[in-house]
Amino acid sequence: MKKGHMIVCDGSNGAGKSTIIQAIEEHLKSGHREVVVTREPGGTPIGEKLREIVLSPDTPEMCDTTELMLFAAARAQHVKEKIVPAIQEGKIVLSDRFDSATVSFQHYARGLPLSLIKQLNEMALDGFRADMTIILDLDPVTGLERVNSRGEGLDRMETQKMDFLHKARDGYLEQAKNDPEHFVVIDASQSLERVISDVLSVIDEVVAE
Amino acid sequence: MKKGHMIVCDGSNGAGKSTIIQAIEEHLKSGHREVVVTREPGGTPIGEKLREIVLSPDTPEMCDTTELMLFAAARAQHVKEKIVPAIQEGKIVLSDRFDSATVSFQHYARGLPLSLIKQLNEMALDGFRADMTIILDLDPVTGLERVNSRGEGLDRMETQKMDFLHKARDGYLEQAKNDPEHFVVIDASQSLERVISDVLSVIDEVVAE
Repeated sequence: MKKGHMIVCDGSNGAGKSTIIQAIEEHLKSGHREVVVTREPGGTPIGEKLREIVLSPDTPEMCDTTELMLFAAARAQHVKEKIVPAIQEGKIVLSDRFDSATVSFQHYARGLPLSLIKQLNEMALDGFRADMTIILDLDPVTGLERVNSRGEGLDRMETQKMDFLHKARDGYLEQAKNDPEHFVVIDASQSLERVISDVLSVIDEVVAE
Repeated sequence: MKKGHMIVCDGSNGAGKSTIIQAIEEHLKSGHREVVVTREPGGTPIGEKLREIVLSPDTPEMCDTTELMLFAAARAQHVKEKIVPAIQEGKIVLSDRFDSATVSFQHYARGLPLSLIKQLNEMALDGFRADMTIILDLDPVTGLERVNSRGEGLDRMETQKMDFLHKARDGYLEQAKNDPEHFVVIDASQSLERVISDVLSVIDEVVAE
């Protein structure tokens, strides 16, 4: 059996995560690998219910600690119910966002203590960690223009002020700088072909391990 | 303005919490106090949505850490949005269950580490604590007979094995023994009149402070 892996696609909204994940999936399947595509918050029936609550624009009264705990609760379920079993079966799990998003949005952007976030992430991950987190880096102004052009409406995170999104971006870059073994930053302002090509080089290295 | 207070009614399922809370409310209102009756998990719009998820018998796959984090998330919202503001306005908050329930069910019954539960409770409470927790103590066999006789169907906690409910009961008694200043145990196997009379004596002492 081939070795299972967990690869995360994360970064600014509008940076093209969904398109890139689809490209990775096709690439891996053409190499005869079993792939599980998932997302956070969500990925399990319980997690998707929590996603609705935590991303709903109808609950502006949600306090920061509640938000943080809901992300962590969805993550704990995701890891235990879906991710770890898939990896044990030799599959490659591709997740749209993971723990890196909580560190960026809740610590760097929202200002919650890093120690609190780390505690909750550790509880949720229970010793597990992703093999590689790919940060699709894009200026938030450009990112939001892309999201708006899709005409889907904004979720609760996307309706935050621009300063919040700039801080979240800096948070991703900081995390990547501090842990180059588990993070790679890809410039998402490049042509889509170029972004995909950069990402697939990373993927090939990770799954060859 | 009179001093606000937080009083919790907790204990075995079927011990009569709802009836007792109603009696306390009437007693306090007759003494011209403003009373806010609430419950956990729940008490806020966000908390009630979480209550549906965490108590639903349709999600047996929910992992222990997820369950714990959902109780904590609902509690954080409850304290910040509803309880603390009410107390600051001099009201008396009566809650059906609170942090004591998490310690009993998730630590004593479910076996999760007390340190994990304390960390999450501390994050959720953010320095707040109830003035008094009244434990309505009843043998779980008798409690479940009472719940069944109401014909309402059982929630996810009530469908646990009897051993689980016995351990939860022991957990309540243990918490009360360890912190007699903030807990009082009332024998809920007595006649309803006697239980109410015992509880109201406690209430009068707390609100006189």
